This record gives sequence, C-alpha cells and structure tokens, in this order.
Amino acid sequence: MIDKNFYMNLAICEAWKYQGLTFPNPAVGALILDQYGKIVALQAHKYAGSAHAELSAIAYAYEKLTGSKILHDNPNDIYNFLLKNHNSLFKNFTIFITLQPCTNYGKTPPCDNLISKLGFKNIYIGTNDPNVKLKSDKFILKQKCDELIEPFLRWQRGENFILFKMAKTQNGVYDGGVISSLSSRKFVHDIRSKCDLLVIGGESVRVDRPTLDCRLIGAQKAPDILIYSKRDDFDKSIPLFQVPNRKVFIKSDFEILKNYKYILIEGGEKMFELTKDLVHWYLFFTSPNLKKGKTLQLNCNLKRLYHVENEYDTIEWFKPIVLK
Amino acid sequence: MIDKNFYMNLAICEAWKYQGLTFPNPAVGALILDQYGKIVALQAHKYAGSAHAELSAIAYAYEKLTGSKILHDNPNDIYNFLLKNHNSLFKNFTIFITLQPCTNYGKTPPCDNLISKLGFKNIYIGTNDPNVKLKSDKFILKQKCDELIEPFLRWQRGENFILFKMAKTQNGVYDGGVISSLSSRKFVHDIRSKCDLLVIGGESVRVDRPTLDCRLIGAQKAPDILIYSKRDDFDKSIPLFQVPNRKVFIKSDFEILKNYKYILIEGGEKMFELTKDLVHWYLFFTSPNLKKGKTLQLNCNLKRLYHVENEYDTIEWFKPIVLK
Repeated sequence: MIDKNFYMNLAICEAWKYQGLTFPNPAVGALILDQYGKIVALQAHKYAGSAHAELSAIAYAYEKLTGSKILHDNPNDIYNFLLKNHNSLFKNFTIFITLQPCTNYGKTPPCDNLISKLGFKNIYIGTNDPNVKLKSDKFILKQKCDELIEPFLRWQRGENFILFKMAKTQNGVYDGGVISSLSSRKFVHDIRSKCDLLVIGGESVRVDRPTLDCRLIGAQKAPDILIYSKRDDFDKSIPLFQVPNRKVFIKSDFEILKNYKYILIEGGEKMFELTKDLVHWYLFFTSPNLKKGKTLQLNCNLKRLYHVENEYDTIEWFKPIVLK
Repeated sequence: MIDKNFYMNLAICEAWKYQGLTFPNPAVGALILDQYGKIVALQAHKYAGSAHAELSAIAYAYEKLTGSKILHDNPNDIYNFLLKNHNSLFKNFTIFITLQPCTNYGKTPPCDNLISKLGFKNIYIGTNDPNVKLKSDKFILKQKCDELIEPFLRWQRGENFILFKMAKTQNGVYDGGVISSLSSRKFVHDIRSKCDLLVIGGESVRVDRPTLDCRLIGAQKAPDILIYSKRDDFDKSIPLFQVPNRKVFIKSDFEILKNYKYILIEGGEKMFELTKDLVHWYLFFTSPNLKKGKTLQLNCNLKRLYHVENEYDTIEWFKPIVLK
C-alpha cells in the first residue's frame, strides 16, 4: 500500500540509521513529496549540530530541483539561504516528519517557521515533541515514532539513557576474538564518540587490554570509563588508561551512572546479568556466521525496535518488555 | 539518494516477502512510477498461478488511478482486461521489475507485450531471465536481483533447491518448546504447502510427535516426508503418518532428495552438520528473546541475503559462502 504510512515508514527507517548518534537530540527522519507526489528527499538528523531532518530534506530537495549547490555548512546559514532563495519551489509540496518540527530558537531557528514560509501544503507528523504544544491529533505511525525518540525523551526529563551493546554470531557466540565487521565496529566507535560514559567489566580489561577509544572513525573525543571490578589492581599500561581527557573509574557498583546522560555498556553474560535492571535498550550486532564458543545462558524477554542491515552484520535495537 | 537503485530496492524488498512461496516460479517484485515520478504501485509475484509481479503492479495502479475494480481473479482475464481498458493511462509511466518480463506464452500471456502495448516510457530491469534473449545491459542492482532468483535458476536447470530452516532465540537457543511467533510459524506452514519434500530427524519425530502439515494456513496439501533415521521402528500413531496424500520415507541417507525439486529441512545441530554440503540456503527465524538452552556449536560461514521483519521475529535468508 502506497499511503501515508508507507512514506512515514521510509522516514522512520532513515532516522534509525542514525539512532545512537544524535545525543542529546532525537533521531528524526523526513521525507518530501513534490506537488505531483514524487519523492524528492529522504533525510535524517545525523548528529547534534548538523541540520535537523526537515531542514536537511528541504536543502537536499532544493539542490536536486534547482541543480545548484547551497554553499553553506552551518545549519543556520542553510536555513537563511532557503528562506531567501526558495522562490516558491516548495509550494504545494508535502513533508513527512517523524517528530513535530521545533517551534523555538535553539541552536537552529525553528523548522516550523521554515516549513510554513516555504508553502508546504501537507505536513504529516509522526509524534509530538514534548516541548511543543500539541498541534495535531492526526499522527502517523505514532507508536513507531515514539519509540524512535525514547532516548531523547529520557534526556529531556533529565534522566540518563543506558544502552547495552553486544556482538554475537548467528548461533549466539559472543567470545573468541573479533566478531563484527569493520563497518559495525566503526558504528560502535561512532557511538562511543557521542556517549559520555562507557562501562566495561574488569575481566575484559585484564584479558583484552582494550583502548576503548574512537580511533576507527578518527574522533578525538573518547568517553569516560567505568571499569566494573571488585579489585582495582589494573596494569596501568593497558591502553585505555592512556587516552587523554578521560576519567577512568574502577568501582564495584553502578552509582556513578547517575552523573552521566548517555551510557554505553559493552559486555558479555556476566555484565548482562549485572545490569539487567538498569539497561533501557540493547544493541546487538549479529554476524552472518556460526562458530563454536560461549553463548549467553539467561532468560530475558525483549521487544525488537528496529533492524538495520549493514554490509555484513545485522544491527538490531531492542528494549526489555518489562517496563521500568 | 532517491534514484533508480532506490526504487529497484523497494521492488526487491517486496519480492523477498514472498521468497520461498513462488515455486516453481521466481520471486519477483515490480514498482510503477506515474509520468510525474509518483509511486503508484509496488507489488510482487505471490505464488505460482497468481499474477506476475508486473501484471499485479499494473492492475493495482489501474484500480488506484481509475477508482474502479478489475472484476477478475484469473491472471489471463486481468491481462486481457488491461489490454482492452488501459485507455493510455500508463503512457509515459516508468516500471521497475527485478526480473526481465516474460516474452512467451506460459500459464499467462507475455508481460513484455503488455508493458509495451500500455506505453510505458521507461522499463528498468534488475536482471535477465535465462530463458529470454538479453535485451539490455543496463541492469539495476543486478547482483541483488540475481540472488533473489537463485532457487528459480536451479529449478530452470532441472536441479533441486534445498532450504534449511531453523528457529532460534537471540542468544542462539533452538530447543525447549515453541520459539517462533504464530506469524513465523504460519510462514513455515506456507513454505511447507509449496515444497514437495520435508526432511526431519528421527529423534525430533520420536520426541515431538509432529504433524508436519500446513494447518496454520488451512492448506490441504502437505509435503512428502523423509525421516532421517537409522532405525525405522516409529510409532505409526505419530500424527505425521496420518496426513492424507503423503509419502513418508524412513532412510539413513539423502538419496531421495534427487527425486524432489523443492526441499525443506527442519532441524537442529545434528541435521545442520549432516546436511552442510547439501543445503543451498538457510532460513533463520530469530525471536527477540533470550532463554537458557541448547545452542548450535559448529563453524559455518554464511552470507546474509535478506532479512524480513515480521510481527515479532526476524526472518533472515542466508547462503553458504563456499560455492557449491
């Protein structure tokens, strides 16, 4: 069925590609149809500081339709350029946005204003921004769009968001050397560059001697580290201790998690059990292969939120079924 | 990027939803854009005897655009109706088809002829039909479209196609009662209603006492059964022996597989190992949950072909990386 849900779903899928990377902003996707119903843009918000999804989609459509380049990088400049130069290009166009456009001046001017100035005829929205007064009760795929912004909603309420990441094979094996493809590992490094605390078990630190930085994507920032361990006699020549501008905590509890907003936990069975009542979402990278090795042996009911394919692996987002 | 690949990919995704169900036909998807570039249809070939993907898409678009119903069920009647009543509706339209349209009279008249008579302006094709003379070297996403029809290519060459199906949890557990959701189990029953032989291990038969029919989708046809077992002292009151119009073989080899065209193997670790050199594709149903239990302990390198999300589970298609 080629209907509103179809287009909103495309916008949702685009947004999920950048899930985990937009902190402290929400993951948002946007799709634009021209006056005849042709798709002219499908874009997402990629990281804090980059253009909002709707601005990004409008800019993409502008370049495609005019054949000219917008020679600006800064979202504010792109915004102002479009306000000045749109030339009624978007008149009678339709836009689908997974989240209600912002109405106030933040880092960027209000998208809401841009969309109305540009003459869009139909504006379809997935769900409302908790900061913005409800404008429509005609949300499209609201549940899916609400799930997309669960981390953002926590941040908005001043709460933290805790993500547990694990790599495994098709048969569930998670130990014994590198499991994920390079592109999956780059995605993890990208998340590490966005989160503010990374939690890891003491045994992993002793055995793997990791760096836990973001080198695969060339990012300078690396998160603080909590090593969960009852002993604190770590060999300080382990690379993770050498990363500049990083605090490393060694604790046998999770108290300091309350001081951070976006927390990534990387671990296996023991860490899974330990953090079961803390974790908000799970992120599983599943390789296409089967191999002999250790599997998780525990019970846990999850709900799949979304599934993204990358080159080789499957990247899946889950949340516990028991409400926290 | 909203380009030819984008649209072909939508057609490919649609086709995969019916993968495994189209025997002896190929899985094919088709997408139609109107003269302005708006998507007006996205359809797939659903099962042998139903309309080809392109016919189905054209019929869907006709009904949407005219607001009238085509009061025919038979693909030939739909074809003739469209030839008579299209009224140049499709002039300057664009069609994307994952497989070159048929050019000869089979069960249905040639789609090739219909598309040209209806005045389509652009015809984009994923890959060529081995039966049809090559008409274009401008295939789109050819590798993906070739993978889509691998089972069909085997049937075309008079060979069989062997699919290994397994249900597992996120942590790889495959035993201990029902794992998949009802909609996944219905999909398996649908495959059973299309394949001609189902292979199962003797131990499963003794322990689970299965029926191995297609009751969940109300289909009357059920495949023949090969019970792989060194002993043939089965309790004949086990329901699978009661299903009418079915042969049941009990053998300790796989010789009879050569007498069948579309073979489904359902099993766990032992069957996986036994059939490793026979299987062409793997079909894994993965539930969102983790539970304690038995996991496969073996090494096997696979390539993911496609994933489909259903209500709860992930349905993924794989093939072995080692070429057979």
